[in-house]
Amino acid sequence: MKLHGYFRSSASYRVRIALNLKGLRCDHLPHHLRKGEQRDPAFLAINPQGLVPALEEDTGAILTQSLAIIEWLDETCPEPPLLPNEPMQRARVRAFADVLACDTHPLQNLKVLARLRELGLPEDKVTSWAGWANREGLAACEKLIANEPGPLCFGAAPTIADLCLVPQLANARRFGVDVNAFPRLLKAEAAARALPAFADAAPDRQPDAE
Amino acid sequence: MKLHGYFRSSASYRVRIALNLKGLRCDHLPHHLRKGEQRDPAFLAINPQGLVPALEEDTGAILTQSLAIIEWLDETCPEPPLLPNEPMQRARVRAFADVLACDTHPLQNLKVLARLRELGLPEDKVTSWAGWANREGLAACEKLIANEPGPLCFGAAPTIADLCLVPQLANARRFGVDVNAFPRLLKAEAAARALPAFADAAPDRQPDAE
Repeated sequence: MKLHGYFRSSASYRVRIALNLKGLRCDHLPHHLRKGEQRDPAFLAINPQGLVPALEEDTGAILTQSLAIIEWLDETCPEPPLLPNEPMQRARVRAFADVLACDTHPLQNLKVLARLRELGLPEDKVTSWAGWANREGLAACEKLIANEPGPLCFGAAPTIADLCLVPQLANARRFGVDVNAFPRLLKAEAAARALPAFADAAPDRQPDAE
Repeated sequence: MKLHGYFRSSASYRVRIALNLKGLRCDHLPHHLRKGEQRDPAFLAINPQGLVPALEEDTGAILTQSLAIIEWLDETCPEPPLLPNEPMQRARVRAFADVLACDTHPLQNLKVLARLRELGLPEDKVTSWAGWANREGLAACEKLIANEPGPLCFGAAPTIADLCLVPQLANARRFGVDVNAFPRLLKAEAAARALPAFADAAPDRQPDAE
């Protein structure tokens, strides 16, 4: 399999963690987002949305959207599972992931911040916007797992929630958010980052890291 | 069960369609988003994110995030299924849904548009932003199903893709987007809206419609 990604893309980072947890080998094909390589016609033929990640199967079939890719990995390679067994717990894990993957990360990705600049928003307001999006999402997540004992977001085994949380906290710090406001999330992050699957997926460990 | 929603919220609209398709009865509890009722302490105790929808089970358990709720409905009440059986097809349906639920709708919901106004963006640029987000997402979706025969997004049975598409097209029209640029999506929408489960879930059919 080939993963089209970018070292700093948090959606690619989620998929890298999932691949590592499943023990799946994958070639990594970087596309430099800041140079606009995701808009190359060759890449648009792979993903018309012009976003990473995209996972290319050995058959040539292409999967897009990080959470859809991760659910597919979990269905086709079930061990270790990335979702609990019980439906209500699955729903809670997915809701946590969606707070970050739907309501947080898309508001502050490169493409969206570029659009805000095009509309005339000055740089300090663009950064304030990105910080706001991160704080809102992380504050909601902190409450969602306030009563979960941990050490990870939901129990002792990594779930899709942890796969979304670790990359988002990295983004939040990049936008100057005081993440100490979220002690339960930091506890989960520390437990996750101690696992090789998470450590090896970190942006600074990727071949295209700058 | 009780569904906390709002007639015009497209995330609530998705869940209403799912409940209708599954034939599940549900009390509808409207929260007037334009009056800020989603920020009432009583509602924040239900969903700390202050967003609709939230589904309250008879046991008192609460589910949030529309896609997590819909996946839970599909797991606990499997007929009719809202996802295909085959993993790769499931991934394609979920990716289509995520283009709208992650990369499109959250950029143009009430809370985000209000934030853009607070940052000083004039009304014409706020509308242009919302139109842009809709056009980008719908254009990607049009390509994702270009080779799908239909009549719905993926075949003859409704999936999560249709549940996300129909409400998003309603939003796009509200923001003045020329949806005729997306003929394949319009074909799916027409087929979906002919089904009672979709028609009965429409915003103008809800008790809190204005």
